[in-house]
Amino acid sequence: MLTLYYTPGTCALAVRIALEEAAAPHQLVRVDFAAGQQRTPEYLAINPKGRVPALVTPQGTLTETPALLAYVAQAFPQAGLAPADPYGFARMQEFHSYLASTVHVAHAHRPRASRWADEPEAQAAMQRKVPQNMTDCFQIIETHYLSEGPWVLGDQYSVADGYLFTVASWLKSDGVDIALFPKVHAHTQRMLQRPAVQRALA
Amino acid sequence: MLTLYYTPGTCALAVRIALEEAAAPHQLVRVDFAAGQQRTPEYLAINPKGRVPALVTPQGTLTETPALLAYVAQAFPQAGLAPADPYGFARMQEFHSYLASTVHVAHAHRPRASRWADEPEAQAAMQRKVPQNMTDCFQIIETHYLSEGPWVLGDQYSVADGYLFTVASWLKSDGVDIALFPKVHAHTQRMLQRPAVQRALA
Ligand SMILES: N[C@@H](CCC(=O)N[C@@H](CS)C(=O)NCC(=O)O)C(=O)O
Ligand SMILES: N[C@@H](CCC(=O)N[C@@H](CS)C(=O)NCC(=O)O)C(=O)O
Repeated sequence: MLTLYYTPGTCALAVRIALEEAAAPHQLVRVDFAAGQQRTPEYLAINPKGRVPALVTPQGTLTETPALLAYVAQAFPQAGLAPADPYGFARMQEFHSYLASTVHVAHAHRPRASRWADEPEAQAAMQRKVPQNMTDCFQIIETHYLSEGPWVLGDQYSVADGYLFTVASWLKSDGVDIALFPKVHAHTQRMLQRPAVQRALA
Repeated sequence: MLTLYYTPGTCALAVRIALEEAAAPHQLVRVDFAAGQQRTPEYLAINPKGRVPALVTPQGTLTETPALLAYVAQAFPQAGLAPADPYGFARMQEFHSYLASTVHVAHAHRPRASRWADEPEAQAAMQRKVPQNMTDCFQIIETHYLSEGPWVLGDQYSVADGYLFTVASWLKSDGVDIALFPKVHAHTQRMLQRPAVQRALA
């Protein structure tokens, strides 16, 4: 049995989708950001970084979305959620790493600008740049990563698709119209048809 | 044969170390940041994101440090540079993802503040916060990730060690004294003894 610590609307959704697609037995524990629960001693004992997602496995607790996605795919290989060969697997990992270290970070400068500067004017300056940075990132995704389609890895659906779906769902609140990126937009629509995605959103 | 596009002093060093440890046949192509070479059409054809590292493999080009590290470990399994079981592998990936998406990003707000705000005062505000953010990150590394040692994954040396060594080498320029973190400091000293690390630095 796996336990996922999550908060609705966060990158933890990508892991929920992966668990649903893998038909992995799991339970969910909701972390209440409004109440600051991610910074309580109880939660810091689970993830000392004070973030979601965290996944408690029979062997120990894991964090970081790219690590959790690859773990779910590898722990439930019969679901076929990741390429098995090193190069195919690396292409998936490249996409995960780009989302985590560049796109998610570009987005976080809106709701979490206080991580990187204390002064309100500096935070406002960062927030003003978020629409442009998210647009630049999704231009790369549209032309470089979704060029083949229908899925991130071409014909093979993988855990990377739930991650793209999750990060693309932040565009609206970041002030970017997803329709600017027709392939990303169609990908989101395709994802919404999947029963596992519908269960993860429920 | 593999080709690594790199720039000295960057996160590409982690991949150079991995290639040396794996005894992977490879050649190096230096990208000149001072000349803006990462933004030339020639280089953008290799990596449309305009960053190093990029690794050209017989099957295609890969980017993103965490993806390249896992790829080198998996493509040269006889070097034993990564755990083979899903949980051990995920622990390594968690560390890679933390470095890429949080620690590297905390550092980048000093030399690359212009990515996240246009105004010089906002950039200066970000730069002022870098020492504190890097200190917080390395406190997590010292107490949470290096608690067992001597290596990131305990007894097993892995590609994660070259990545930690690389990111720790930025502390000085970020205004943080590595001696504040005795385990990280000892790890760096241990790494400098390794012939592969000496070759990668040469
Ligand atoms: N690199 C981590 C980032 C995790 C992260 O930043 N999670 C956000 C939600 S999307 C969070 O927990 N924020 C709470 C906070 O900053 O207090 C990952 O990819 O999992
Ligand atoms: N997420 C990427 C980040 C790569 C990155 O930011 N590389 C820096 C050097 S450490 C770079 O190429 N900077 C050039 C620039 O920003 O123009 C990775 O982990 O490989």
